[in-house]
Amino acid sequence: MSTHPLDGTVRALAFDVFGTVVDWRGSIVREGAEFAARHGIRVDWPRFADAWRAGYRPAMQKVRSGELPWLRIDALHRLILDGLLTEHGMSGLAEDDIACLNNVWHRLDPWPDAVPGLTRLKNRYVITTLSNGNFSLLTNMAKRAGLPWDCIVSAELFHHYKPDPETYLGTAELLGIAAAELMLVACHPDDLRAARAAGCRTGYVARPLEMGPGQPPARVEDGEFDVVAGDFVELAERLGA
Amino acid sequence: MSTHPLDGTVRALAFDVFGTVVDWRGSIVREGAEFAARHGIRVDWPRFADAWRAGYRPAMQKVRSGELPWLRIDALHRLILDGLLTEHGMSGLAEDDIACLNNVWHRLDPWPDAVPGLTRLKNRYVITTLSNGNFSLLTNMAKRAGLPWDCIVSAELFHHYKPDPETYLGTAELLGIAAAELMLVACHPDDLRAARAAGCRTGYVARPLEMGPGQPPARVEDGEFDVVAGDFVELAERLGA
Repeated sequence: MSTHPLDGTVRALAFDVFGTVVDWRGSIVREGAEFAARHGIRVDWPRFADAWRAGYRPAMQKVRSGELPWLRIDALHRLILDGLLTEHGMSGLAEDDIACLNNVWHRLDPWPDAVPGLTRLKNRYVITTLSNGNFSLLTNMAKRAGLPWDCIVSAELFHHYKPDPETYLGTAELLGIAAAELMLVACHPDDLRAARAAGCRTGYVARPLEMGPGQPPARVEDGEFDVVAGDFVELAERLGA
Repeated sequence: MSTHPLDGTVRALAFDVFGTVVDWRGSIVREGAEFAARHGIRVDWPRFADAWRAGYRPAMQKVRSGELPWLRIDALHRLILDGLLTEHGMSGLAEDDIACLNNVWHRLDPWPDAVPGLTRLKNRYVITTLSNGNFSLLTNMAKRAGLPWDCIVSAELFHHYKPDPETYLGTAELLGIAAAELMLVACHPDDLRAARAAGCRTGYVARPLEMGPGQPPARVEDGEFDVVAGDFVELAERLGA
């Protein structure tokens, strides 16, 4: 086991989920292909997945700004999906089938290193989600994928979406620790910068395939984050777990 | 696997924790004896544990009635503990030692059937805590004891203590299910009656040793609860898990 300068100061790790822990794009493309075959339709699933995800940030922004009341991600995903189905000429689907498709976000597959890395990290740290995904989504996802969380924490518990500081501070408070004892782990620099501004430590894990092959990598300054790793197993190594 | 009339209607089980999952009295007596030996003091730990627990319901009632603001159980345990230390002539302890003693509630041991029973139930149902214990207490307890929860739900998330209906209904809402799809499992009939009144299903598990040996059993009417079991392994059997 390697040691690390953070040893003894970080007590819990909170993980961003979509992109950081699970491959949302690959999962939607895979399940989408089965869905299309079952319903005898043709869909460009990579494009569909990208458009679905692209609608997510503006929808959350409407909640953060107060334009929309608090709505969980399941509801935001459905709002975006309804628009996409019309655009893609898929408006003839039955309600049950649409609801099932919307719930694909509960059934995303983890990156291959996620479960082994988390299992190691759990030996030394409290490990939790800190995702904008709703509580039931994260619970169902963990159960299906075998993600060994100590607990589930969601933006839903705070009625604030990341990057609002209430989410990072609220997680530390629920865990009974100081913000400086909590490390956010994410593949999104903006999420990490907001966590750092709230007083948390930060762990950056690169996920170059999150947006599909051939996309430019995220821009990260040298020394900007406390730990940088290529995957969760390397993160465990660097954090002495 | 046996089948059960509830099959297909119950999707998640929410467990009361103190008494139902863990043996708070035996755990405090065991750890108390080590604490006393370390500090060279003599304490009647069974009596101490009973007095500590007896102060819990009136303290929560003060929060429920609004006489006290929202306080997590760690804070209520500490209020009661401070009074008991004076009564028992233990007021010379250092703050760190008192804080450590107060945290014994994070280190309670499960009844022997709890982990094997929960492990079976988890194969078929979402299993969660629904305890008045705070979120960090339940998270730390689960990690230490190996309780295989899918998620942690605490009264702290609702700022309402059981038996307020907000706790049972709030749990169902977080899990994305109807109240009738949630079963509360507890060894305390009053908790179960409140859950039933909120529209939940109920599972009673007898814990005759919760208050120590030789105590009268809880009074339960025939057919009052949906399922009655002697321990969690029998509960798994009855629920087809």
